[in-house]
Amino acid sequence: MISKRTNSTFLIIKNYYNVWVGYNKNVQHNSYFKNSLDYIFKPRSIGIIGATERKGSVGNSIVDTLIKGDQIISYKSLKDIKEDSIDLAVIAVPRNNVVNVMHELKIKNVRGVVIITAGFKETGAEGLRLENEIINIGKTNNMRIIGPNCLGIIHSYHNMNASFASSDILKGHFSLLSQSGAICSAALDLSLQHNIGFSHFISVGSMCDVQFYELVEYLFYDVNTKYILLYVESIGDMNRFVAVCKKVCLYKPIILLKSGKTAKAAEAAISHTGSMVVVDNFEELFNMCKVLNSSKYPETNEVCVVTNAGGPGVLLVDNIIKNDGVLSNLNDKLKNNLNSFLPDSWSKANPIDILGDASPVLYKKTIDAIIKDDQYKNIIVLLSPQSVTEPLDTANEIINLKKQANEQGRLILCNYLGGTALEESANMLNKNYIPTFVHPEHSVQNLLKLYENIKHIQGIYEEIPEGLSRLSRKSLS
Amino acid sequence: MISKRTNSTFLIIKNYYNVWVGYNKNVQHNSYFKNSLDYIFKPRSIGIIGATERKGSVGNSIVDTLIKGDQIISYKSLKDIKEDSIDLAVIAVPRNNVVNVMHELKIKNVRGVVIITAGFKETGAEGLRLENEIINIGKTNNMRIIGPNCLGIIHSYHNMNASFASSDILKGHFSLLSQSGAICSAALDLSLQHNIGFSHFISVGSMCDVQFYELVEYLFYDVNTKYILLYVESIGDMNRFVAVCKKVCLYKPIILLKSGKTAKAAEAAISHTGSMVVVDNFEELFNMCKVLNSSKYPETNEVCVVTNAGGPGVLLVDNIIKNDGVLSNLNDKLKNNLNSFLPDSWSKANPIDILGDASPVLYKKTIDAIIKDDQYKNIIVLLSPQSVTEPLDTANEIINLKKQANEQGRLILCNYLGGTALEESANMLNKNYIPTFVHPEHSVQNLLKLYENIKHIQGIYEEIPEGLSRLSRKSLS
Repeated sequence: MISKRTNSTFLIIKNYYNVWVGYNKNVQHNSYFKNSLDYIFKPRSIGIIGATERKGSVGNSIVDTLIKGDQIISYKSLKDIKEDSIDLAVIAVPRNNVVNVMHELKIKNVRGVVIITAGFKETGAEGLRLENEIINIGKTNNMRIIGPNCLGIIHSYHNMNASFASSDILKGHFSLLSQSGAICSAALDLSLQHNIGFSHFISVGSMCDVQFYELVEYLFYDVNTKYILLYVESIGDMNRFVAVCKKVCLYKPIILLKSGKTAKAAEAAISHTGSMVVVDNFEELFNMCKVLNSSKYPETNEVCVVTNAGGPGVLLVDNIIKNDGVLSNLNDKLKNNLNSFLPDSWSKANPIDILGDASPVLYKKTIDAIIKDDQYKNIIVLLSPQSVTEPLDTANEIINLKKQANEQGRLILCNYLGGTALEESANMLNKNYIPTFVHPEHSVQNLLKLYENIKHIQGIYEEIPEGLSRLSRKSLS
Repeated sequence: MISKRTNSTFLIIKNYYNVWVGYNKNVQHNSYFKNSLDYIFKPRSIGIIGATERKGSVGNSIVDTLIKGDQIISYKSLKDIKEDSIDLAVIAVPRNNVVNVMHELKIKNVRGVVIITAGFKETGAEGLRLENEIINIGKTNNMRIIGPNCLGIIHSYHNMNASFASSDILKGHFSLLSQSGAICSAALDLSLQHNIGFSHFISVGSMCDVQFYELVEYLFYDVNTKYILLYVESIGDMNRFVAVCKKVCLYKPIILLKSGKTAKAAEAAISHTGSMVVVDNFEELFNMCKVLNSSKYPETNEVCVVTNAGGPGVLLVDNIIKNDGVLSNLNDKLKNNLNSFLPDSWSKANPIDILGDASPVLYKKTIDAIIKDDQYKNIIVLLSPQSVTEPLDTANEIINLKKQANEQGRLILCNYLGGTALEESANMLNKNYIPTFVHPEHSVQNLLKLYENIKHIQGIYEEIPEGLSRLSRKSLS
């Protein structure tokens, strides 16, 4: 039985094998896919096996978010579906039915599979036996499998949300691979707040087939992915993983958050290659993304600071030194320039303290002068709320300077050191891709960590294989 | 000339020496003050020297915020004022007039002075000379001076804001001493966002007279101050400072944020005593306050975790181990209890993973069972937003459990791991004094740092001088 679903009408048959198929107009029809993972990430058609009308159920949630507004057809059973009509199957049926579904998918020649269902090797002997059966079925027909026990996948540029994370997603240049579905959904929620756009979210689950190293390599060729984020508990094939990352990271920064005991060994291997940015915690992962959101890798570890307050300036300097950064010396030309419009009692040194009553215009003139001087590549602007401070107008002036700063190859980060009174202006800066932090340590620490990374990559640049060196390096600029 | 100002009427004479005097009905009239600092912090009358009608000026800002709604009288000059009618004088006249003002204040027998004006020893020889004159005038009449070059002082319980930080302030049990005015105003702004209430804000400026150690001792006797926060660039008399802190910290936790090069030596001396909690940065200072906001010091380094997600649970465990904490073992009684209502596939161990579809009621039942078991003192509740998660209702259930948790001596911290979707519920938890963080590392790290501190204090408890031991220790409970 076949029924059509338009935007507002559903027709659902209550049956675990109920299958909904949707077509994605965003994907071009080619005669074949070059990479087997394309069946998963660029499917022209997606079948959801286990769709039900029960609100809050996983199957229902996936159908709801899948291809918004597109036509979806509902089938009573997989048997009703023509061979080769499904590229990607998302399985959300109870554990004991998964093996049967896999058999049927094989008959229908389905090549891409995401298994949401949990309860396999992580639950003991019987689960392991079932998982091995799944792997064997997949192998006989070159089926590629993500999962089991995962949240699903999202490809923002295809408007494809084949997961049960129900949030909206901002399009952008980060891709996240995560061994924890909850980390995926938490990251998705945080990304909306920090204005970080994503290309792919991939919850890998137990990785019975597709491994981290394959996905990293796959994302290397994804034009929308500029930065790859990894949340890893266990890495799988370590040698292959390190080899792939070592070449990918030359073009696309890889940021790794490792967790759990197994990852300790991995860390040793990874830090040996030095090719990835390893972060200590989830917050640092996000702060790093905020720095990268400005689309510029730091060229130097020298930092020039503009501040309206001495104390917070000192905190910032502490953090520059602690993180192996250097406070740039002010050259005479810049000093003379600043003398011409700053009040007499400005600091005459870096940090450039433009005093507690600094107006938006004074901030603007100061930053403008620094941008124009070729010596200063990294500029950190600190604002603390004092009685006459105008955080919003100051933010606007900084945003107006962004284009010029980009053209001159300058990196501007902001510290808006406060709470309630600064929230709106800090959000506005972030929205305009000027990475803005509350606390001084966050801006500097992440900036300098990225500099260390690029320095290392430049050091090993001659090792790039011939094939890769033909690709442009613009993702880093 | 004398004129009265009611709530809405101003009468102002343009003159640098223009003086406004306000009376504070909140302060009881005693025949004398026992402590000379009472003239500064408990003045019955405050004169502002340098009040002008220019909006945005420091003098104007102070008058505006000083004693809201109280009657203020305006004088043309200090000479018009009766002797002994001003307890505290706040000076906001230009630098070169400060010495004259000090002479006149001495004649009027003013004993407490806050000098907002900048431009003294920090600007060179002439400034140093003027500052020394000020010190000498003060000494001849036992005048106590805060500043110069400071933001002023706030005593929330007297509704006294003798500063040019214009924000509102929440009443509470923290007091901040800061060598940077901007840190004061940033902290004030952040405290509104994090729901941290203050008793005193004291911007100490260049500390020409009143030093840190005196203020710490003074706040020791302040009934509203339970916790003392210090932002320090240079400590002054190190021996006295360490001696005072060593006794005060036995009753009131002292949290120190040091900054700048001079403070490095101080840190060595302080960490030797081990009596203070030394934080690395401004964010940690605030996170520490959030933990203390629950009015409970941790009794143990054992932590029991409740989570709706495996991955974030692992991150939390990583941070417990990294910070010398211990993951409590679940006893059989609790396990049986949890088995009676949790779904079969719950983790059966700590972290207690109550699975991705955990309802508010399931959170409630689980936390309730842990609270009732005497083994578990520190409970961390982690929530990650998944498709069926109800963050707000879950927050309400946790808030409902707070009273019972307090009575049983339990400490509950929350990790609401997400952004936009969790903001409202996290704010609600914080408003109800359940310290709530985004990132797992922040809750655990600060909890365990406080435990280290109390352990040290208990170790040196026998050293308490006789006079102090009579005071109750309830500020720590």
